[in-house]
Amino acid sequence: MNVWGNNIKLSVFGESHGIAIGMAVDGLPAGESIDVNEIRREMMRRAPGHDPFSSARHETDDVEILSGMKDGFTTGAPVCGLIRNRDARSGDYDGTLRPGHADWSALLKYGGYADMRGGGHFSGRLTALLVFAGAMAKQVLRRRRVNIYGRIAAIGGAVDADSPRDEEDWRSFSSSRFPASREAAASMSRAMETARADKDSVGGVVEAVAYGVPGGVGEPFFASLESIAASMLFSIPAVKGVEFGAGFRLADIRGSESNDAIVIKDGAISSPTNNCGGILGGISNGMPIVVRAAFKPTPSIEKSQRTVDPADMTEKNTEIKGRHDACIVPRAVPVVEAGLALSVLDCMSAGRGFLPA
Amino acid sequence: MNVWGNNIKLSVFGESHGIAIGMAVDGLPAGESIDVNEIRREMMRRAPGHDPFSSARHETDDVEILSGMKDGFTTGAPVCGLIRNRDARSGDYDGTLRPGHADWSALLKYGGYADMRGGGHFSGRLTALLVFAGAMAKQVLRRRRVNIYGRIAAIGGAVDADSPRDEEDWRSFSSSRFPASREAAASMSRAMETARADKDSVGGVVEAVAYGVPGGVGEPFFASLESIAASMLFSIPAVKGVEFGAGFRLADIRGSESNDAIVIKDGAISSPTNNCGGILGGISNGMPIVVRAAFKPTPSIEKSQRTVDPADMTEKNTEIKGRHDACIVPRAVPVVEAGLALSVLDCMSAGRGFLPA
Amino acid sequence: MNVWGNNIKLSVFGESHGIAIGMAVDGLPAGESIDVNEIRREMMRRAPGHDPFSSARHETDDVEILSGMKDGFTTGAPVCGLIRNRDARSGDYDGTLRPGHADWSALLKYGGYADMRGGGHFSGRLTALLVFAGAMAKQVLRRRRVNIYGRIAAIGGAVDADSPRDEEDWRSFSSSRFPASREAAASMSRAMETARADKDSVGGVVEAVAYGVPGGVGEPFFASLESIAASMLFSIPAVKGVEFGAGFRLADIRGSESNDAIVIKDGAISSPTNNCGGILGGISNGMPIVVRAAFKPTPSIEKSQRTVDPADMTEKNTEIKGRHDACIVPRAVPVVEAGLALSVLDCMSAGRGFLPA
Amino acid sequence: MNVWGNNIKLSVFGESHGIAIGMAVDGLPAGESIDVNEIRREMMRRAPGHDPFSSARHETDDVEILSGMKDGFTTGAPVCGLIRNRDARSGDYDGTLRPGHADWSALLKYGGYADMRGGGHFSGRLTALLVFAGAMAKQVLRRRRVNIYGRIAAIGGAVDADSPRDEEDWRSFSSSRFPASREAAASMSRAMETARADKDSVGGVVEAVAYGVPGGVGEPFFASLESIAASMLFSIPAVKGVEFGAGFRLADIRGSESNDAIVIKDGAISSPTNNCGGILGGISNGMPIVVRAAFKPTPSIEKSQRTVDPADMTEKNTEIKGRHDACIVPRAVPVVEAGLALSVLDCMSAGRGFLPA
Repeated sequence: MNVWGNNIKLSVFGESHGIAIGMAVDGLPAGESIDVNEIRREMMRRAPGHDPFSSARHETDDVEILSGMKDGFTTGAPVCGLIRNRDARSGDYDGTLRPGHADWSALLKYGGYADMRGGGHFSGRLTALLVFAGAMAKQVLRRRRVNIYGRIAAIGGAVDADSPRDEEDWRSFSSSRFPASREAAASMSRAMETARADKDSVGGVVEAVAYGVPGGVGEPFFASLESIAASMLFSIPAVKGVEFGAGFRLADIRGSESNDAIVIKDGAISSPTNNCGGILGGISNGMPIVVRAAFKPTPSIEKSQRTVDPADMTEKNTEIKGRHDACIVPRAVPVVEAGLALSVLDCMSAGRGFLPA
Repeated sequence: MNVWGNNIKLSVFGESHGIAIGMAVDGLPAGESIDVNEIRREMMRRAPGHDPFSSARHETDDVEILSGMKDGFTTGAPVCGLIRNRDARSGDYDGTLRPGHADWSALLKYGGYADMRGGGHFSGRLTALLVFAGAMAKQVLRRRRVNIYGRIAAIGGAVDADSPRDEEDWRSFSSSRFPASREAAASMSRAMETARADKDSVGGVVEAVAYGVPGGVGEPFFASLESIAASMLFSIPAVKGVEFGAGFRLADIRGSESNDAIVIKDGAISSPTNNCGGILGGISNGMPIVVRAAFKPTPSIEKSQRTVDPADMTEKNTEIKGRHDACIVPRAVPVVEAGLALSVLDCMSAGRGFLPA
Repeated sequence: MNVWGNNIKLSVFGESHGIAIGMAVDGLPAGESIDVNEIRREMMRRAPGHDPFSSARHETDDVEILSGMKDGFTTGAPVCGLIRNRDARSGDYDGTLRPGHADWSALLKYGGYADMRGGGHFSGRLTALLVFAGAMAKQVLRRRRVNIYGRIAAIGGAVDADSPRDEEDWRSFSSSRFPASREAAASMSRAMETARADKDSVGGVVEAVAYGVPGGVGEPFFASLESIAASMLFSIPAVKGVEFGAGFRLADIRGSESNDAIVIKDGAISSPTNNCGGILGGISNGMPIVVRAAFKPTPSIEKSQRTVDPADMTEKNTEIKGRHDACIVPRAVPVVEAGLALSVLDCMSAGRGFLPA
Repeated sequence: MNVWGNNIKLSVFGESHGIAIGMAVDGLPAGESIDVNEIRREMMRRAPGHDPFSSARHETDDVEILSGMKDGFTTGAPVCGLIRNRDARSGDYDGTLRPGHADWSALLKYGGYADMRGGGHFSGRLTALLVFAGAMAKQVLRRRRVNIYGRIAAIGGAVDADSPRDEEDWRSFSSSRFPASREAAASMSRAMETARADKDSVGGVVEAVAYGVPGGVGEPFFASLESIAASMLFSIPAVKGVEFGAGFRLADIRGSESNDAIVIKDGAISSPTNNCGGILGGISNGMPIVVRAAFKPTPSIEKSQRTVDPADMTEKNTEIKGRHDACIVPRAVPVVEAGLALSVLDCMSAGRGFLPA
């Protein structure tokens, strides 16, 4: 289902080559000042065509807010945002099952009725909707002293081991056009360049962090911060792995290393490390929330690939021509940030509004 | 919230040292023959005390089915299963914030009212409820030719690179007491032994696979098979990472390697590889569903750790005495299998029951 | 929250005097042929200005489908429908708490941030969205031999005791411009005329029925057909009562009268009466589903009313000038039908899609 | 599905003649003192055998709390309450489709697998679970100055026109064993007596009211207070109608009568009447929330009724012997109160817990 959230409700709709894509988000508090230019800036961070490795498709991604706002403030009613597909091509989908795309599984599910032009409802273009909703969530959160940052942790095997040290460091990373340390950025660029030269593509890892989330946000079990955020992040096309804190690395180390020591710092309970990514038992402990998402390489490549024509069930080769990202990871940074922002907002909006006795 | 699922609804309740833990699962079809002995066998696979590295706590985990079954068949009403806490100790929780446990975050959320004896509602003991529900799900699925298997992929840095080749191979792995290849099992055992000798613990990775899931199961976006399964698996205490197919490894390789070629095999569309873990665009493609979950090391260790006494906000050291697993990973295999089974069942139960025109 | 449904998900958004109102419905099967002209015809039945008692507002209610359809068929992705507010007046809401409107409660909830022009998100205009979604649901249902009909059961105290006898009778009623028996229609018209002459308004009762719903649809408890349909119908502004079958009248009679006898008819289990409205224990029994919704009189009246100006907390009188319906009941018939259609479709779409063993 | 609520989650399970019935409620705040004796007193109000018109079945309804409570306080984890079926008879259900019962529809849904002994999961006995959860909700609400009261508004056509005037009046009504005005109580008793003498049964109407609900609780559309409460109340077996405020009576009157005038009283916005039942646009306005539920007569009657034996599809007569209520309405008062309490609590728990900027 295309509806997400327990306490806020996000609905998304639209196809890559349809009339428009859009989203409606309900549950934002009334009276929140929303800066639409900030939404646009976030959209620009995700938009293609701003770096040499991204698709040449011209997406203005111009946002139209149809409801839920008045005089620059949220009204409490659902906010619908629409993005017209101005650059939509009329071209038809020829039925080829493109390896790595949803064509195969969609054929099995929808029996040929799905609109697969440009990936249709499965297109990465729909992540613009997450960025849209996330840009609003970020503004609501910032007013509660919660800030979200993101960076490129790895591309095509080039890992940026130089993690930001503190919020200041994250802020400067995050505002950069290519949020990675200089050295890693060079390796990553090389990985993307050689992939593009080889008519190939590369994936990578995006890391996002939420500073300022108060302790006590989240729930044990199925509404754990991890469950909520993972259900959001795995809805991003191309994400195949999600980890919190030290994540998979915890499988390699000892409890005495993995457990974050608990200390008093500036009069408050704190920890010198954050292997738990700010989440214990599904609930925030006041440390920064840290999440990483692994992106598979863009499946659209010009290299020849083996596939099947389902019309006559014959094998054939396919070369996917056109405007493709050699790597979507740089553009995915604001998407993962948006996913984290929405997740934190959903959990922070949980319950008990009227209840304090 | 302690309720999970879109099409089946699983509710869990209970605390480690309370009267009982239990679960209710709704949405199972009526008329399903359920073998309670099979539930018990699955519970035994998770129960502690069956290997030298697990807690010595004697949990009979004897299951009592209170509702939803008649004469061995599901009735269509919710099935409630109860497990009495026979071995519960009356001891009280002394308020220490044990590093790596939920004590810290729970204190912030519940203000000291949570029952944290033995971990309370956050205890790994509650995963017995997932195994309980999962054992029913497995039987329902098996009747639809869907089978779930699991294995230990890594413990304490010892990786089992020898992945099962096919369903036959998985079956023999899965039925083993220690489902890993012989060589890897030896390294894993050493890792656990030395950790125990050091009053320490280790984590690891569990892999589970679902064979026979038809194509077309799942949805794009928020009800993707990945979102659903991740929301379940991240509710398992100690899980800090989840990946599907080749997962995080996809971040290191090229699109031409990561894309699974599409071929005709035995007259059907298939693929020689399965980097996508049987899921494209959130929807199954008919290949096996493959998921891995990373477990952090057991946080309860006897080694001295720095912590805080929240009563007087002073730092102190703590050594956690008692019956602890040096590694919970072997016991976690049936838990991850159960989580996958429930996720697949939830997605396979989706919609349109009466609808075929 | 503005999202409804367990198995289909309907999201609505928009305000009376905003840019547009819209809805997204997810969970419709793929490959359903949808006749957009039929949607328009249903919208016309609800649109104002077609009878002398309705608002003079010119609503073209022209529908724009933005997603989820291709070549006249559903694709399986969410269908977003948009209705532009061409006739929106730019006038502002002056803050008066109009008796019977949501102004009072919205002020308390949203602290003055709600867009209350023309009723804003609370406006009856948003019921066009239910009709839009319902018109699609009806087409999906008709293909499964389920048909929905509606009639005016009462207006301003004038009751139409002459209930349709069978599906044929319902069909001819339903297709009429004023779906009531001739005699009752005359009394109802008089009630509306005199109300209008008195600068007043009247309410009434709408009845809807679903023929062809197979037995076994619905669930006990919270997903009972009654719970689902009531949760939908009570979301219609002005609805203050909902009853199924003989409804409140059952409070006056004996069990021996109220129980529907069970007989064999044409080889199938049937009943000569239908006091239960086709629902026993929350589940359909194969008889027609019968529901009635009570509408309060239109709160917008020109008669002078006592109210409060919240700006200075003084009492004052208000007369609501403008284009108001003396009675919305005739226009509400397709809305109640739509609510019933969506409810039946949601319940019929429940679970177990892949499950038959 | 047997799970209810957006912000609290109530799961119910069990069958009339099974081992036990139970419920789990999640989302209650931690640190709430819960008086178990008060739960027992509420259970006693619903229990049969306390008036001459109720079933002679001896239900001790003794409650066992398995989780979520410690030292008399809620812990924040789900509270599971269990009621053993001590008086369960081992007798089997003979397959007769009892008119007015769920036997017919359950047969169609569950194909003979449902446990229909004593009504099984459809039994009115399960309403004890709502009373259980409701008794906790009432205590949580009372601490926030919200109080719930109930009365018998009608039985078998005998209407109590003498509605309580204010909260004081409601309180004295509510604490009475037979909460109706003296005169009406006499008529109601006669209706029940003659029905019993005729081996028949009668239904009636229960009214409940919530005093002290702050303005601004609820949402427009699908999470309206009316939608939420109706979805709960229609899950009570035998309820076939629900109305708020003046309800169906509003269909007979003019807007000028139905609109509640808005005035200043004691410095606050108030109204001399409450036809809207404290709800405008789905949101509370600070006036008492008023709801009425219509109960059909108990379907179990000794009078001979026509029915069908599905085994051989023959018509036959049935007389339902045994311990039956001639009228369940007096016992239903605490059930409706519980339903209203849970609904108000769910809506008051909505969102924005951490959000105040």
